[in-house]
Amino acid sequence: MENNKVIMYDSTLRDGAQALGISFTVEDKLKIVKKLDRLGVNYIEAGNPSSNPKDLEFFDKVLKLKLTNSKIIAFGATRRANIKAEEDANIQSLLNAGTVAVALFGKSWDFQVTDILKTTLDENLNMIYDTIKYFKNKGKTVVYDAEHFFDGYNASPKYAMATLQAAFDAGADSICLCDTKGASLPSHIAKVTRIVRENIRCAIGIHCHNDNGMAVAGSIAAVEAGAVQVQGTINGFGERCGNANLCTIIPNLQLRMGYGCIPDESMEMLTPIARYVSEVANIIHDERAPFVGNCAFAHKAGMHADAVNKNTSAYEMINPAVVGNQRNILMSEVAGRSAVMNMINMVDSTITKDSPETKKIIERLKELEYEGYQYEGAESSFELVIRKILNKYNPFFELVEFKVIVDEPSVNSVNSSAMIKIRVGDQTEITAAEGDGPVNALDSALRKALERFYPQIAEIKLTDYKVRVLDSNHATASKVRVLIETTDGEDVWTTVGVSTDIIEASWRALVDSVEHKLIKE
Amino acid sequence: MENNKVIMYDSTLRDGAQALGISFTVEDKLKIVKKLDRLGVNYIEAGNPSSNPKDLEFFDKVLKLKLTNSKIIAFGATRRANIKAEEDANIQSLLNAGTVAVALFGKSWDFQVTDILKTTLDENLNMIYDTIKYFKNKGKTVVYDAEHFFDGYNASPKYAMATLQAAFDAGADSICLCDTKGASLPSHIAKVTRIVRENIRCAIGIHCHNDNGMAVAGSIAAVEAGAVQVQGTINGFGERCGNANLCTIIPNLQLRMGYGCIPDESMEMLTPIARYVSEVANIIHDERAPFVGNCAFAHKAGMHADAVNKNTSAYEMINPAVVGNQRNILMSEVAGRSAVMNMINMVDSTITKDSPETKKIIERLKELEYEGYQYEGAESSFELVIRKILNKYNPFFELVEFKVIVDEPSVNSVNSSAMIKIRVGDQTEITAAEGDGPVNALDSALRKALERFYPQIAEIKLTDYKVRVLDSNHATASKVRVLIETTDGEDVWTTVGVSTDIIEASWRALVDSVEHKLIKE
Repeated sequence: MENNKVIMYDSTLRDGAQALGISFTVEDKLKIVKKLDRLGVNYIEAGNPSSNPKDLEFFDKVLKLKLTNSKIIAFGATRRANIKAEEDANIQSLLNAGTVAVALFGKSWDFQVTDILKTTLDENLNMIYDTIKYFKNKGKTVVYDAEHFFDGYNASPKYAMATLQAAFDAGADSICLCDTKGASLPSHIAKVTRIVRENIRCAIGIHCHNDNGMAVAGSIAAVEAGAVQVQGTINGFGERCGNANLCTIIPNLQLRMGYGCIPDESMEMLTPIARYVSEVANIIHDERAPFVGNCAFAHKAGMHADAVNKNTSAYEMINPAVVGNQRNILMSEVAGRSAVMNMINMVDSTITKDSPETKKIIERLKELEYEGYQYEGAESSFELVIRKILNKYNPFFELVEFKVIVDEPSVNSVNSSAMIKIRVGDQTEITAAEGDGPVNALDSALRKALERFYPQIAEIKLTDYKVRVLDSNHATASKVRVLIETTDGEDVWTTVGVSTDIIEASWRALVDSVEHKLIKE
Repeated sequence: MENNKVIMYDSTLRDGAQALGISFTVEDKLKIVKKLDRLGVNYIEAGNPSSNPKDLEFFDKVLKLKLTNSKIIAFGATRRANIKAEEDANIQSLLNAGTVAVALFGKSWDFQVTDILKTTLDENLNMIYDTIKYFKNKGKTVVYDAEHFFDGYNASPKYAMATLQAAFDAGADSICLCDTKGASLPSHIAKVTRIVRENIRCAIGIHCHNDNGMAVAGSIAAVEAGAVQVQGTINGFGERCGNANLCTIIPNLQLRMGYGCIPDESMEMLTPIARYVSEVANIIHDERAPFVGNCAFAHKAGMHADAVNKNTSAYEMINPAVVGNQRNILMSEVAGRSAVMNMINMVDSTITKDSPETKKIIERLKELEYEGYQYEGAESSFELVIRKILNKYNPFFELVEFKVIVDEPSVNSVNSSAMIKIRVGDQTEITAAEGDGPVNALDSALRKALERFYPQIAEIKLTDYKVRVLDSNHATASKVRVLIETTDGEDVWTTVGVSTDIIEASWRALVDSVEHKLIKE
């Protein structure tokens, strides 16, 4: 093992899948395994074959993948009390998963042994020893997960240490100290990890939960105290408040502290993979997440934004590109004028801070922000606002009328249709389209009407559609903000629309999206 | 100061307002001040009067509030180089805010003095000294914020300490060490805080940013090292990855570590206030947040959920009620059957784990989850699923047809109308309603049609409406999940609908919401 190497042990597909709202299909899991292998984590704990029949199908398939960097781990409990390991059906399921490595979890906390497992403290030590020995005899690599280790240590240090000793005696390849309840302070984790290191001559791992908001810090404290394996998940997914977030831990250890976690050349995959896993998990990506969130390198405050422009090291831990992320300088009423000026000067380079147009644009920006618009992340719509004020805008078309009809029961399995009439110069075009829902129908109808005049509209494709309810106290009459992301295969742009009516909000964002394309040409 | 008291210094309205997507109105800020005062934080850093004219109006109003627990702080920079404090317009704005306490920030990092401020190291010491002295002579309480202190200390410990000495000599009441870049390790913060404590005989505070994901841990490490003031924000709002989250820090310090932060009786306001601030800030509340998120005490995994039922201390740091939160046991395919059984038994107590109905319900649950339904948080819809399978469901009405029309330009300022025809027994009712958007029109029409048969429908009111795009790769044809929260003044219930059509998804959730009310009676 190279110097300062810390083994990265990913449990997104096992402990991460315990998160509220996450449910991976077999295909999802296979896709994520491929990404994790490319990222270069050492272990992928991919499921619990004894608790979930879906996982057996998955293990069949995953073991057929050719992985470069990662080993697959199947996860399961130590044997039940008072039977042999080979008689335990769960142990057999775990063995049948066919992985070269297994993770076995056992109890460290005396109270849990007597009150939850309802067995004796001695029998629990036997369960740990026998199960590990059984898998070692089958030639497996064994990671022993000492569940509730820190709570167990607090309650009875002697017994907690005895469980680790049993694991070590049985030949465990590594022993992972689990802060299952997520309550331990980093300083306490560091202290206890040091004591374990002094007493057990095994590679020590750390597995933290985030209930106290310190899972990352606890993991890093353990590494500072000599742990050489970190268990965590992509984006910190996991039950309750989540597991230790590997997307935060990896850059901290590797870029700031000099440890080796993943290949250097994989580091720039971190942000794309974090977003990919959010997408597959169908969880809104946490834009405030360190390193991999959209806000991580965003600067809003006038003072800071100026300073960042002057010297990035003053306000940025690392160069965002290293982790595949990017810097954002955001507009807003407290942004001072520098971010807004950058946008204005993209449209007209002769405008200065003191031009009367600048004042007008900022006034308009404030009005629109008051209505619920937000241009952070929807710069293409803001560019159109600026063009309109600077008279650098000629409407490409004019809406005469549209009508959207939703029918239930649906007609011919299509339940929405839209009629649209537009005017371009002195010509009008009226057309209609059907769709999967009213916005889809309206989008299709608008583009159909425009293509006659602007054939390049055929090149664009909507790639994302987001709805945000702004004011949920008014329930179905709430204001909504719609963000639409569009691509023409070359560029990607985002536009925004706000209204109490989702159709109208979508319409505004659609129009901006189309106009951005036409202005671009 | 009582033993073990840690001063809570909230900067939600100042540093928190730098967050992407947050923009508080004066009214918003006043509402939040009242909540923070009730929560019992000691200081509320409420704005920067010199950078933002809106803040002056706010300070006028906020100083007229009668606060019980909190002091308002105005925030600003040390004087500019080479002028007197009284000649600096920003200093005058700060003074004019009229607060009894001010926070003054100055540079600690030699590189920033020479490269950003472009002045000499000595002049920076004078700027710190003069500005603090000026405010002390005016009778103000002064908190000195040592910006970039940890970076400054790393670059030149001697100069960084000299800036603190200047602040102390000028009479600062407390000195706050700021990890402005958010890059410092908790262990480093602890070490440096200890050194500062040994050298500067002033009350020391800590102000962390979360760029490395360890702002909470850094703050707590500083307290362990002797800091007696913690600066942070509600929900950790703040620029980039946010500030230290007081909603995490307060329960850790007070409930787990024995420090005093806020009055004990205020602790149960923590979750409601955290949600309130998210609502006012118009930011989706982080449900995974420690202590104050919906998931913080939620249990999904079959094994854990069983264990939690057996003994809460095994998987919960604290009793959720102490922080005004509650436990959730969630349904899902890996939930084992115990959570699902609880729901089934609420409908029919004779059904057991082994009943064939249980299997059918779980199969149906899996199918629905596959379609994108999620019943975690929408138990009322799941109850209806169970009733349908157990034949404990009689439809209260049957939809014959609806038609929703959206017009642009709008007719008489209302752009959506809905026609609906329903059947109840052998009677039909056809009616129509207008609305602010198609969902609002449909909701009004449905309730209007039902009221003839079920007058109690008049008692219900929709209180929340959420839209989640499930599969944003299909843009406007994406699947959406709609959650509707309803109340009849007595109970609150949530229902869910999924479809590629937002109108249809909303319809399904609306129907469940109405049926829940009718079944309840």
